Amino acid sequence: MSAEPPRLPTTESLIRGRTVPQSFILTLRCRDAVGIVAAAASALASADAFITESSHFGDETTGLFFMRTGFRPTGSRFTTIDDFAEVMAPVVRRFDAELKLHPADARLKVLFAVSKQGHCLNHLLHQWQAGEMPIEVVGVVSNHDDLRSMVEWYGIPYHWLPVGADKAAQEARILHVVRDSGAELTVLARYMQILSDAMCRELQGRCINIHHSFLPSFKGAKPYHQAYERGVKVVGATAHYVTSDLDEGPIIEQDTVRVGHGLTGDAFVRIGKDVESIVLSRAVLWHAEHRVLQNGRRTVVFREGA
Amino acid sequence: MSAEPPRLPTTESLIRGRTVPQSFILTLRCRDAVGIVAAAASALASADAFITESSHFGDETTGLFFMRTGFRPTGSRFTTIDDFAEVMAPVVRRFDAELKLHPADARLKVLFAVSKQGHCLNHLLHQWQAGEMPIEVVGVVSNHDDLRSMVEWYGIPYHWLPVGADKAAQEARILHVVRDSGAELTVLARYMQILSDAMCRELQGRCINIHHSFLPSFKGAKPYHQAYERGVKVVGATAHYVTSDLDEGPIIEQDTVRVGHGLTGDAFVRIGKDVESIVLSRAVLWHAEHRVLQNGRRTVVFREGA
Amino acid sequence: MSAEPPRLPTTESLIRGRTVPQSFILTLRCRDAVGIVAAAASALASADAFITESSHFGDETTGLFFMRTGFRPTGSRFTTIDDFAEVMAPVVRRFDAELKLHPADARLKVLFAVSKQGHCLNHLLHQWQAGEMPIEVVGVVSNHDDLRSMVEWYGIPYHWLPVGADKAAQEARILHVVRDSGAELTVLARYMQILSDAMCRELQGRCINIHHSFLPSFKGAKPYHQAYERGVKVVGATAHYVTSDLDEGPIIEQDTVRVGHGLTGDAFVRIGKDVESIVLSRAVLWHAEHRVLQNGRRTVVFREGA
Amino acid sequence: MSAEPPRLPTTESLIRGRTVPQSFILTLRCRDAVGIVAAAASALASADAFITESSHFGDETTGLFFMRTGFRPTGSRFTTIDDFAEVMAPVVRRFDAELKLHPADARLKVLFAVSKQGHCLNHLLHQWQAGEMPIEVVGVVSNHDDLRSMVEWYGIPYHWLPVGADKAAQEARILHVVRDSGAELTVLARYMQILSDAMCRELQGRCINIHHSFLPSFKGAKPYHQAYERGVKVVGATAHYVTSDLDEGPIIEQDTVRVGHGLTGDAFVRIGKDVESIVLSRAVLWHAEHRVLQNGRRTVVFREGA
Repeated sequence: MSAEPPRLPTTESLIRGRTVPQSFILTLRCRDAVGIVAAAASALASADAFITESSHFGDETTGLFFMRTGFRPTGSRFTTIDDFAEVMAPVVRRFDAELKLHPADARLKVLFAVSKQGHCLNHLLHQWQAGEMPIEVVGVVSNHDDLRSMVEWYGIPYHWLPVGADKAAQEARILHVVRDSGAELTVLARYMQILSDAMCRELQGRCINIHHSFLPSFKGAKPYHQAYERGVKVVGATAHYVTSDLDEGPIIEQDTVRVGHGLTGDAFVRIGKDVESIVLSRAVLWHAEHRVLQNGRRTVVFREGA
Repeated sequence: MSAEPPRLPTTESLIRGRTVPQSFILTLRCRDAVGIVAAAASALASADAFITESSHFGDETTGLFFMRTGFRPTGSRFTTIDDFAEVMAPVVRRFDAELKLHPADARLKVLFAVSKQGHCLNHLLHQWQAGEMPIEVVGVVSNHDDLRSMVEWYGIPYHWLPVGADKAAQEARILHVVRDSGAELTVLARYMQILSDAMCRELQGRCINIHHSFLPSFKGAKPYHQAYERGVKVVGATAHYVTSDLDEGPIIEQDTVRVGHGLTGDAFVRIGKDVESIVLSRAVLWHAEHRVLQNGRRTVVFREGA
Repeated sequence: MSAEPPRLPTTESLIRGRTVPQSFILTLRCRDAVGIVAAAASALASADAFITESSHFGDETTGLFFMRTGFRPTGSRFTTIDDFAEVMAPVVRRFDAELKLHPADARLKVLFAVSKQGHCLNHLLHQWQAGEMPIEVVGVVSNHDDLRSMVEWYGIPYHWLPVGADKAAQEARILHVVRDSGAELTVLARYMQILSDAMCRELQGRCINIHHSFLPSFKGAKPYHQAYERGVKVVGATAHYVTSDLDEGPIIEQDTVRVGHGLTGDAFVRIGKDVESIVLSRAVLWHAEHRVLQNGRRTVVFREGA
Repeated sequence: MSAEPPRLPTTESLIRGRTVPQSFILTLRCRDAVGIVAAAASALASADAFITESSHFGDETTGLFFMRTGFRPTGSRFTTIDDFAEVMAPVVRRFDAELKLHPADARLKVLFAVSKQGHCLNHLLHQWQAGEMPIEVVGVVSNHDDLRSMVEWYGIPYHWLPVGADKAAQEARILHVVRDSGAELTVLARYMQILSDAMCRELQGRCINIHHSFLPSFKGAKPYHQAYERGVKVVGATAHYVTSDLDEGPIIEQDTVRVGHGLTGDAFVRIGKDVESIVLSRAVLWHAEHRVLQNGRRTVVFREGA
């Protein structure tokens, strides 16, 4: 079961006002070599695909090549995702590439996890309802019941899964919701529990956390109060993929905001909320638009509009 | 009739976690002269007031002096707002000053006006509900019915006042709501109607608008599309007091965000929403905390924590 | 005659520490169509060129396509700029494209024009001397003699060309220096004279100005003092190509900085200097690296590292 | 021996264009209590001092009170620094306060320490020469001879003090220059040597370092390369007072700049230079204007124009 946003725009206008019927997004990762772009672009051209957007990056330190291309069919012979998978197959074989193809209007199934603080969730759900976030929200899990009313107002299932003596059992219940809802991405929108190693591994590459500091500064608990004690002049937030190494996963996005000497740690908490919401929201949008590719411990982010 | 935020924290913890029983905020404006700070501070000291926060500014171009002081009584003789009005009376007379005194835990009565876009309202109402905005929301007026459900979920009265043939009549209805609700501040949170001169005059100094451009660039309609046409690399938002001179009122706050060449005017609209919400939210907070003093066409803003 | 930077690093390390022998940069502009990327990339692949960096942009509003590709030869048959011009010739014909090819280690010949303020020039010359700006400084012209000592310390020819009764004659002398020095780009680094229409046309597309405001706000003279009068909370700077329409040319880069109520117009002048220097410096770097392509009244800027 | 900036403006116009004859700056630090502001302001008023600028801060966590007041005499009886020291003496005694008084047009004697990188020094010396930095540059020390020519062009003594086998001897020579030149502040403008504990103690509170990371992230060597390895999306710089605890001294100022996935550690180095220069320059300006007061491990910074 999953929720559609209330007062939804039509599919065509969903992706921010642009009509994108029949468009596709392709991502590709492989060892860098002469001829990759030519091979990929030629394969698409041979199938009468019109490239609407394309970004490449060859990492000289790792020798890896990354590519993201948006295209739309202009002919009648190649029109489906299977058609283009076939068109690209020789390229994949030749370069031993990792290829993904997505319909541009597909909405990624997202499950949110929250605790008591609602600012990140509120921001993301409003964007989703306004048709600005190409996701389908399949549910919200929480170890508290506080945000139920907000979530249910949006018509989204709310799963209250309190943490008791048996934490493993609670995690099992969350993973059950993940599988049951078909969630392709789990977003920890200020979920204040540390995930077990096993759960981190299970969700590897499809779980994004927002940490309320400018990582790697101030890992762990109460980062704003750590920042206050250190006397910093700027605080920040970091969205990253979750790994079993706490607050050490690949960073997707970060941003910062100034703090004056007259602000307390509690004031940092309040002021930081906006930057947390915005940083997490960008990370979810970019992941959902297939703009984020992992590059070892780092990420390649093909930002919209560069 | 007016709404209290659901799940409200106690009054003591309302103003961002600090216990502030019996505190006051004093603002003062007059011609600059020798001895103002001494006179004001001495009057407060003579009444055993402990100053918690104080900011001054003498504008050398206009010769005006501005002051904002937070204080709390430490004795038993002077404890009420009337006591301190009396304590300050000689200072007011001596410097021909404009003095205002507010209990620090008073919540300003605020009426919002919106049209169809809900992002600014959503952001402000969430902050209010989280106890981070020292206001009392007395209602929302709109020329459309779209945001009723969101507003009513917060328990706030929604007044649908469509604009018909007789625009003056609609404005009269809004002003009736203003008076009837006791609103001390009207916030145009993306209200897409131009107010008449009469209405601007009526609400002078107690009406804040968010304009979705970095004023004075791109006044009037469709500023993001004007910005796109001009090829700017940064867009912004401006919160200002409303005057009868369209988009020319005293600016309270502005901020900006970068835009790449690959973004359309419609994308500017979407990306600008966060900066609009944040800029308006700061302006409302600072006005509600009596941090904004008008200085001719400009404003003095004694920012929190400097 | 032209100056080499003193204490110059070797050519290989010039472009920010990367060894780039035999690399090329290609830019291309044409009507958008199916197969452009394929055709260009295939041509390069057929000549054993390894693509190190590539960016594309198709503007849906104008129907134009823009591309910038960095590549290096890996074979022995195609190695020179002429070789690759030949390789690309069929692509140029097929798509009626505008193609440019540059050796990546070529340094653009730049002439600066200044008046009395030296901050932008100081910043750029220091970056140039540190080997961070891929340009060759062929001279500095000025209507004043103030900055001679600074310029000559760098070993650069200084041309003092005062503006007298005959302004056209002075402009003719500047244009003579432009031609004589072989300058490919003229940078107005706070040159406080308005160029004639004829001179603007002559330098079209190869003359960059820094305007000390966030355009289109505050065109013309004394923009910081205009900004102060208007009471803005943020000021900015704009680097743009010069056209005969004053301060209306295509924008390359902009940035902003906050200003408090306690700052005067003179303080804005001082605080704005850093943002002017940085904005102009980025614009010159990006132009010199062939990252900026004109798109009507707007620009496409393929930013380094996106 | 010390250098005056070449082409110096007159003293009156030195402090950024404002005429400030006979003005003073007072800073005060003590336990917070009722009546401090009143006592200080009344003392000044009794001596006919006109307050031009005043900032206070009471730190609720430490119970300390901080104040910075600019004033100018308007009478004929109290005109010198000694007069005002006497006027303030009862306040100092009553509140056991730490008081400092400075002529507003006094220029702080500053010694710079550098290694091979000149960007921070170049930026500061240009501002100083332009009359925007209220300091007197008494010399530059370096463990290398690279920047001699730049420094001597400004007419400033250059002390080449290479680090040999006996590092203590080299530090002793630096401290000799500090004492001999009368330097009131030593600025480590990318000086790439770690100071001994003894030297840190000797210069306590009068030595500012720029660290090329957003502290507390990436302490120690090669912070940009550490940042690159960690995959951050924003890098920064931190100006702080030097203490014997490496990169742990009280922070005066920080700022940040975005970095894309396509930038290498070497590119971070280059891009970070501007933010280093600006952050250090602000810290030196604010220290020289007596705007920075230490508050344990943190600082109070009464920013200009708030």
